[in-house]
Order: sequence, then structure tokens, then C-alpha cells
Amino acid sequence: MNSIELHKKLVGKLRIKSAFKVETKEDLSLIYTPGVGEVCKSINSGILDHRKVTNAGRTVAVISDGSAVLGFGNIEAKAALPVMEGKSVIFNEFAELDSYPICIEEQDVDIFIDIVKRISINFAAINLEDISAPRCFEIEERLSNELDIPIIHDDQHGTAIVTLSALLGAVTLTGKKDNRVVVLGAGAAGTAITKLILFAAQSKRISIAYIKVFDSQGLISSDREDLNKYKRELAVLTKQTKTERLSDGLSGADIFIGVSVANALQHKEISRMSSDPIIFALANPVPEVDRELAIKAGAYIVATGRSDYPNQINNALAYPDLFKGLLTHKIKKVEMSHKLLVAETIYKYHLDKLDVNNLLPSILDKSIPEIISNSLKSIK
Amino acid sequence: MNSIELHKKLVGKLRIKSAFKVETKEDLSLIYTPGVGEVCKSINSGILDHRKVTNAGRTVAVISDGSAVLGFGNIEAKAALPVMEGKSVIFNEFAELDSYPICIEEQDVDIFIDIVKRISINFAAINLEDISAPRCFEIEERLSNELDIPIIHDDQHGTAIVTLSALLGAVTLTGKKDNRVVVLGAGAAGTAITKLILFAAQSKRISIAYIKVFDSQGLISSDREDLNKYKRELAVLTKQTKTERLSDGLSGADIFIGVSVANALQHKEISRMSSDPIIFALANPVPEVDRELAIKAGAYIVATGRSDYPNQINNALAYPDLFKGLLTHKIKKVEMSHKLLVAETIYKYHLDKLDVNNLLPSILDKSIPEIISNSLKSIK
Repeated sequence: MNSIELHKKLVGKLRIKSAFKVETKEDLSLIYTPGVGEVCKSINSGILDHRKVTNAGRTVAVISDGSAVLGFGNIEAKAALPVMEGKSVIFNEFAELDSYPICIEEQDVDIFIDIVKRISINFAAINLEDISAPRCFEIEERLSNELDIPIIHDDQHGTAIVTLSALLGAVTLTGKKDNRVVVLGAGAAGTAITKLILFAAQSKRISIAYIKVFDSQGLISSDREDLNKYKRELAVLTKQTKTERLSDGLSGADIFIGVSVANALQHKEISRMSSDPIIFALANPVPEVDRELAIKAGAYIVATGRSDYPNQINNALAYPDLFKGLLTHKIKKVEMSHKLLVAETIYKYHLDKLDVNNLLPSILDKSIPEIISNSLKSIK
Repeated sequence: MNSIELHKKLVGKLRIKSAFKVETKEDLSLIYTPGVGEVCKSINSGILDHRKVTNAGRTVAVISDGSAVLGFGNIEAKAALPVMEGKSVIFNEFAELDSYPICIEEQDVDIFIDIVKRISINFAAINLEDISAPRCFEIEERLSNELDIPIIHDDQHGTAIVTLSALLGAVTLTGKKDNRVVVLGAGAAGTAITKLILFAAQSKRISIAYIKVFDSQGLISSDREDLNKYKRELAVLTKQTKTERLSDGLSGADIFIGVSVANALQHKEISRMSSDPIIFALANPVPEVDRELAIKAGAYIVATGRSDYPNQINNALAYPDLFKGLLTHKIKKVEMSHKLLVAETIYKYHLDKLDVNNLLPSILDKSIPEIISNSLKSIK
């Protein structure tokens, strides 16, 4: 059965069931009128927190406007729904969470934020998904500041966490210090990866000489006049003042992380990197460079987003477990320290199996949610 | 265990489960990337209807702004959530439907409608709930006109359907023709009940001489200058031109239907009605008149909203089954004929058990959904 046939058969990949059997009128009067009235009154008077007595205490919303879905770009809300449902399935299957997708037919940033705020009372946490950059940065930032539940744009942070996990493993294998890092792509994923690597470096968890971020116009640096405010911030954070071409930036680099487009990296550019370079070519479904070509050109470790190659970097390894931990420990705002901790926990869990062709545990490994949840307990 | 304890224990009366077990990477690639991409593309190109391949084809949203919850009035969205969850439980338990509550923190009619429209793509039908009158009329009307899925404000139509079912039974028992009907209360329920009785009379399913609707200021009639447009419409529909007091309107009436407030009907007023009067005192939790007092004053049949008295009129008898039928037969807009048919189906199903103290089947009778669904097939 192919995916379309399966979707036609299921008509929705989720099922909503009552948690309580209604067999008598007394049952009915407990969960509905008149009994439920006491619960409503107690919430209204402030005695009871509605998130302690309703699904708003357990359900993760997966919310999208459909503006940047998979590799398809802006296919809008309706066509995004099958992906969001798939995410809710993963939350349920991998972390035993209740999750429901809400696609919103609105792409104006202010109105979209307003709608999410006005429905946020129904949910315990919000996973923003497939929202285009740079809109996604403002949407996440404002919702995080204005709501008292965790808001995570997974395309940024799920990807950043798993990439850092894999990178910690890769650097352990090369044993290098003062790594020179090149990131290609300054959208949602590239920006979040860069910030998390910088935070890990400040926290002495990874040793880097510098990190340079490139977009299609070259190195993101403070002398460029074509940058939006998020890219200007990246130039400052990475301390880059003079732009250059990617091929120049790659000379002598130890690590390449691509979150850009198919075939954006020439294999000859790999040969100009330092010895035993690490190549993460994460563009989906076609990577920045073919794995075999990269290895021929001298790559020591290659990771991609593909499930049919070794070293798949897939955010599904992190996000169900991250949300599970946040909800379990009632953490209301996700900080850099949480993300670093999750990345390190995955890395350490896998350390005894670590190999150039085995950087990460399987996304199907069902012991990870509890390990991550326990790790977050320590910095609650 | 009382209702608050039960709600604390459950933390949400619904559970969301995956409809598909994810055990292998192949499973994952069918329900998520890359397989799901084909489904998204087909929706985007218009080849596939998103409601045929996602939960938007099966899930009934229960949507409220919390402006008129139970008898508490405007307790707002958060405090309304336990009721809406209870409704979703009833949808699932009584009609095996998937249903999810969404409370929206917005009471401006235009903005509320806009938000519902922008999230409506996620649902197969919308049950509007506990929205104050007259706002509820405009909200339901505009959403019904502007969306291509069934929109039902249950406080209007669920109540009207079950009230008509009970009334058909009561009139069968009295055997009277040309019934003189008084409705007290011109909010959501009173308006919908009046319109449905008028439609049933036009369709020769019930014989009435007239129907008079009263609010707290007296008979709704075209000579009154304090009426909003919905009450003006009621005056025209009921052909009332000169206002009068309730006690005058009740003289000689055969049927009283109260959807107003506790103790609004004096038992001495009952004695001024015609012989063997029918009293539906539906204010909750305290009826317009006490059942025992009404019987002492000469009432032949008394129905209330209470589960501890005979003849409970509870919209839960109708709405799960109505939605089930609409979804099964892909009926996109609810018409008067659908509502009348459901009311008659319930009445006929119960005919051989009909008694002055047994006007309706039990809301726990699980054979009703299929009977109603089958009946709607005939006027698809």
C-alpha cells in the first residue's frame, strides 16, 4: 500500500476516544451537566487551574500555516494537514503524548499570532511547524513571550538538537579541537543550528575556532547591506565582518553543515577542507552533496536527512521526547540549556555504539523518551 | 468520587491515539516524510480532497466562546472547556464520532467568526455551543453560509429537536387538535423551538392554532419597539401584533414550553390553561415550575431538563445522532427538514412505550444513532 492509499483508507491518522465510559445517568452527570458545573465555576473563580482538569493539561498542538511544508514551499494550510497529522502520530507513538494538528488558513504574521493566542488555552504546549523564515522567528518569539506554555518551532530546534547530537559524536570521532565550522543556509534550521552550536561552545561542550554562516549570496557578515534583522543578528553572533564566497569559506574548514538545497556543495570543495572533514548534507530529499561523492572527495563522516543512508539526521529523534520532558516537569519556557541538555543526552546514550556510520540512535528506539525526560528533571 | 475529583484524576476527558502503528522506518515514511509528501502535493494540486484523507473528514469540533455556559452566563472560554470536553465525550460514547473541543478567547462576533473560519479546514463539522443570544444567531448563520461543512448551534437545534420529539408524544397522548402554544424565553432555545414547531405545523406533523413567544417584557409582537431583529422576526413568524402579559397569554393555552429561568411560571397560571395542559419547564437546574406543584395545579404532562424526574428533555438525545447522520450521508447544510425528521424519528421509535411519564427514549439507548442516521439517508 502506498502513502496515498493508506491515507484514503484511514481518513485521518488520529482517533479521539473518551477517557471515561458513560454507562449510567450518574456517569453522564459527572462528566457533563450538572456535575461539570462545579468544575467550570471553580475555574471561573480561580480556585482551579483549567490545565489541571482538562485536555489543555496534556495535549500538544501541532500548528502550521502551511507556508513552508517539506520541500514544497508555500502549499498553504489544507495541503499541510497530512504532515501535521503525521507529527501528532509521532508524538503519540514515540512519546505517548496526546497531540492534535491545527492548520490555520492565515499567513499574516500579526493575525496568525492573534489566532494562536486565542486558541492556546486548549493546549499544554505548541509545536509550530513548517512556517517560513524569517516569519517563523517573530511568530515563535512573540508567542513564547506572550503565552505561559512551551512554544517550539520544531524546524528550528528539533533539527538543531539532533544536528548537535550528531556533531558531538562526529567531533568525538575526529578528536579535533578548535573546529572551523561552515553552515550553509540561514533559514529556520541554519539559524537555530548556529545558535545552538555557539551556546554549546560557550558551555565548553564543543571546541570551535569559529562558525561561519552562508546564504545564497555568500558569508553572512556585518558589511552586507542586504540582510534582514535575523541575519544581521547572525553576523554579530558569529563575529563575521567581511563577506566571502562559500568556496573560500570552506578552505581549511573541519565541518560543513548544509541546510540549504540539493547539490549546493561541489565535491571538489570538500577536497579543499582540512583533513578528515565532517559533512552534514541535510537538504531533503536530495542532499547538498551525494554521500558517495563526498566520501570519494575525502569526507571522513557524512550524515544526511535520508533514511536509506547511514547517519540519518531526523528531528523526530528529539521533538517527541523534548515535549514529553517539558510537560512531565512542567517547564513553561524552552531555554538554550534545555536544548543542549537534550542533544547531549542523546549523544551520551549512544556513545558506546558511536561509529563513523552510526552517529545517532534509531528514531524507533523507544527508551529515549524516558531518558530525555529524566535528564530535563535536573534543570527544571 | 465527585465531579471535581474525577476531573483532577483524568486531566482531560479525551485521549488522542494514533490510528496506525509505527514500528519500522517504512511505516514512518508512509505516514510522515517522504511518503506523506505525495498526499500533500495531491491536495495542493486539487486532485485530492483533504477531507477524504485527513481527520478533517471525521472530527466534529465543539466550539465555544464561553459567553453563555450552562446557567452561569458569561464565564469565558477557559471555564467553558470542561463542558465542551463533556460534549466531545458524548459524541464519542453515544455516536462513536471523533470530536475535539476548541474554546476561543474572543467574544467579538466578527473576529470570532473569522477565527472559526480559519481553523474550520481541520474539521468535518462544527457544533457551536454555549454562545449567548442574539450573537449566536448571526454567528451560526454566517458560518453556515460561508463554510461548506455542517454548522449547528446545539443550544438551539439539539434542544428544539428533542423538545419537538417530546411534544409530538405529548400531543399524541392528549389527542388534541389546534393546540394553543405558549413559549416563554426568546433566546437561543426558545427561538429555535418556535421555528421548528412552526415548520412541523406547516408540514402537517403537528396541529396548532397559534404559537405565542414571551420574553421577560411580555408577548413578542410587532407593536413592541424594544425588539432586536431576531425578536422582530419572531413576531412576524408567529403573526402576533399586540403585546400582552404572560398570564393573559396562558389563559386557555394547551401547551407551555419554558426555556427561561427558575420559577417563572406561577402554578395558579396553570389552572387558567385549558384542560389537560402540557407543561415543559426546561429551565436548568431549577425548572419554571416544580413538577409536583404543576401536577397539583392540573398539568396532565410535565417534562423538565432534570435527570431525577420523569420526562427529561436533554439535547444529548439528538445531537450526537444528528451529526452522525450528517457525516455518514455527507449532508453539508442542516435544513429544517433534517431537524423535523430527526425529531419524528425519535418520536416514532418510542411510540409503543409512550406514556405521560415516559415521553422519550433514554439518552443511554445506543440503538438511536443508527436509526437516526438511516432516517437521514432518505432526504440526503
